[in-house]
Amino acid sequence: MKFILAPDSYKESMTAKAAGLAMAAGVRNVLPQAVCWQIPLADGGEGTMQALVDATGGTIYQTRVKDPLGQDITGEYAILGDGETGVVELASASGLHLVPPARRNPLLTTTYGTGQLIRAVLAHDIKHLVIGIGGSATNDGGAGLAQALGVRFLDQAGREIGFGGRELLKIETIDTSQLITRQRPLRVEVACDVTNPLTGEQGAAQIYGPQKGATPAMVTELDRALSHYAAKIRTQLGREVAFKEGAGAAGGTGAGLLAFLEARLVKGIDLVLKYSGLETNIPAADYIFTGEGSLDDQTIFGKTIAGVTRLAQQHHKPIIAFAGRISDQEALFRMGLTAVVGILPGVCTLEEALRAGPVNLEKAVSSVVRLLNFERNIRA
Amino acid sequence: MKFILAPDSYKESMTAKAAGLAMAAGVRNVLPQAVCWQIPLADGGEGTMQALVDATGGTIYQTRVKDPLGQDITGEYAILGDGETGVVELASASGLHLVPPARRNPLLTTTYGTGQLIRAVLAHDIKHLVIGIGGSATNDGGAGLAQALGVRFLDQAGREIGFGGRELLKIETIDTSQLITRQRPLRVEVACDVTNPLTGEQGAAQIYGPQKGATPAMVTELDRALSHYAAKIRTQLGREVAFKEGAGAAGGTGAGLLAFLEARLVKGIDLVLKYSGLETNIPAADYIFTGEGSLDDQTIFGKTIAGVTRLAQQHHKPIIAFAGRISDQEALFRMGLTAVVGILPGVCTLEEALRAGPVNLEKAVSSVVRLLNFERNIRA
Repeated sequence: MKFILAPDSYKESMTAKAAGLAMAAGVRNVLPQAVCWQIPLADGGEGTMQALVDATGGTIYQTRVKDPLGQDITGEYAILGDGETGVVELASASGLHLVPPARRNPLLTTTYGTGQLIRAVLAHDIKHLVIGIGGSATNDGGAGLAQALGVRFLDQAGREIGFGGRELLKIETIDTSQLITRQRPLRVEVACDVTNPLTGEQGAAQIYGPQKGATPAMVTELDRALSHYAAKIRTQLGREVAFKEGAGAAGGTGAGLLAFLEARLVKGIDLVLKYSGLETNIPAADYIFTGEGSLDDQTIFGKTIAGVTRLAQQHHKPIIAFAGRISDQEALFRMGLTAVVGILPGVCTLEEALRAGPVNLEKAVSSVVRLLNFERNIRA
Repeated sequence: MKFILAPDSYKESMTAKAAGLAMAAGVRNVLPQAVCWQIPLADGGEGTMQALVDATGGTIYQTRVKDPLGQDITGEYAILGDGETGVVELASASGLHLVPPARRNPLLTTTYGTGQLIRAVLAHDIKHLVIGIGGSATNDGGAGLAQALGVRFLDQAGREIGFGGRELLKIETIDTSQLITRQRPLRVEVACDVTNPLTGEQGAAQIYGPQKGATPAMVTELDRALSHYAAKIRTQLGREVAFKEGAGAAGGTGAGLLAFLEARLVKGIDLVLKYSGLETNIPAADYIFTGEGSLDDQTIFGKTIAGVTRLAQQHHKPIIAFAGRISDQEALFRMGLTAVVGILPGVCTLEEALRAGPVNLEKAVSSVVRLLNFERNIRA
């Protein structure tokens, strides 16, 4: 029997990876020879790179890059287990968490470091590049990222512009002749659940600028800068990106990736399902086990478990969710879960439940596997 | 799909019958057409008659009988759904609970009322009689019971002896010529988990006398009376009952039933499994669902769930136990349960868990049935 073990994290109790290990132990208690594909889930946001590395047996590399304010820091990127797929998370080099609140200023912050990560991952012989762009500190339209990859943004005097959203206003010419991906077949996919356009009332500056430290005056200036940037991309590269869905993601990095890397913006969970091996393995799997701490409305309207459930349904596979808390079981069934199993073995405090999470999950999984195994043997 | 729903009671939360109803609701939420045999469990002790009536759709009748001290009270007996099986519980007429503590005296108490119940049930056209003998207030060797059925115990003067353990000493002659079961084919089975002999150190008076109100002097007198009684049965009926296993049950009522009704003493749970319809239905069942409030050591060394588990194993049927509390799951698997499922949908207090028992049980059952149904459909 073959199992896909694809849990989300059990908040405050287990990481997705730890939950996968507990599930695997539960399966092997009953069926020592069972095949268990452990595919911890992520939603495309921070932590997705680690989840994909865990799922595929990939490798994480470190490299020196510039942070949003141009200081050198250590960033990370990954090569997945297939050896053909690189993964970069913008937050690793250009994340808001890297800038102390007092210094947050999207007029100045750059995605240059993310471009450096991409440059580093491209030194490997990869065919696919997956980029997570959540959590940015920037509003530079991905111009810094492009600069690190060889794109030159020149002002009226023919000088390279500097870093930050404000500098975009100076662009006169865009020179992509040195772009390192020019002659290279590369599929770039961006995990992006944001649908904002680049500019305007729903644009990057307006919606996300303030949380990155922009004052109302800065928002106006940044929106203007992004409009100018989009106009230059349109006239010089012949690409219309300003109103594409997701162009406004990560301070306009979505637009930059569309313009310079011909990226596809894809829902994060869909990339996770694809590159984690879930999509590949599901046809051969007998059962999919998933779960998280609490199965509730957020599960149903959420990404991860809803995503894997959809996939299981497409393949007509039974999918069983294990959780410490189950609310509105009928709605979870309607979402497509075959069964939901509570893992609590008795009345206890929340603290006890969180602490015993791995043991409880392992036992509940064992019991379900015994049942499934009995069924199989009876029919065989 | 056919289900046997055979829960024990969930203490302080649901009776066995209520648990069976919750399970049935859980099954029918998923499979409205499923066949559900609801067979609430009992262990042969008090409550067994009601459980068998519930399981088979039987009828309870009331009749006036004598209590242990000879006062008139209302006692109950039952005819099971098959119309051929009568059930009597000694406790209904001769139970310790019927005698106020200050008046408990096994020199005086009689099983006559139980004999009246048997007489009443025999007015129906039954072929099988099941007698539960737990909880007696008596130490009369079942002589009172026999008297009610027509047996005459005569003293040296040829007079009928009175009620109570002390009177046995007066027996000179036993006359069974008027015994109402003499010419009637009747199988009598007694639910008896006690193995004590009638007399001696492990005998009825010594072991159970004190809890029925006997002083040490009374114990000595009662043991002597039972010995005399057994000797008379031996010499006049040619039956040796004193050292049969269970002869000492219910103050020697075991011995009386062996001697006068040629009863078989059977473990309570085995009678429950047989007369509840479980044994009959199990070959046609697809799944057996059982459970109780807490699955633990008492389950494993206990009677009810261990008994139905043994039966399920003999028939190679999957048996799934649902509980609010599960301890030592591995030991429960070794006992033979196919799977154990916790019904708590989240952290809560004991009071909340007890109150929500029926809802939680119904939901957990629904989820398992969905899984089993999916399995079936996939293989079909």
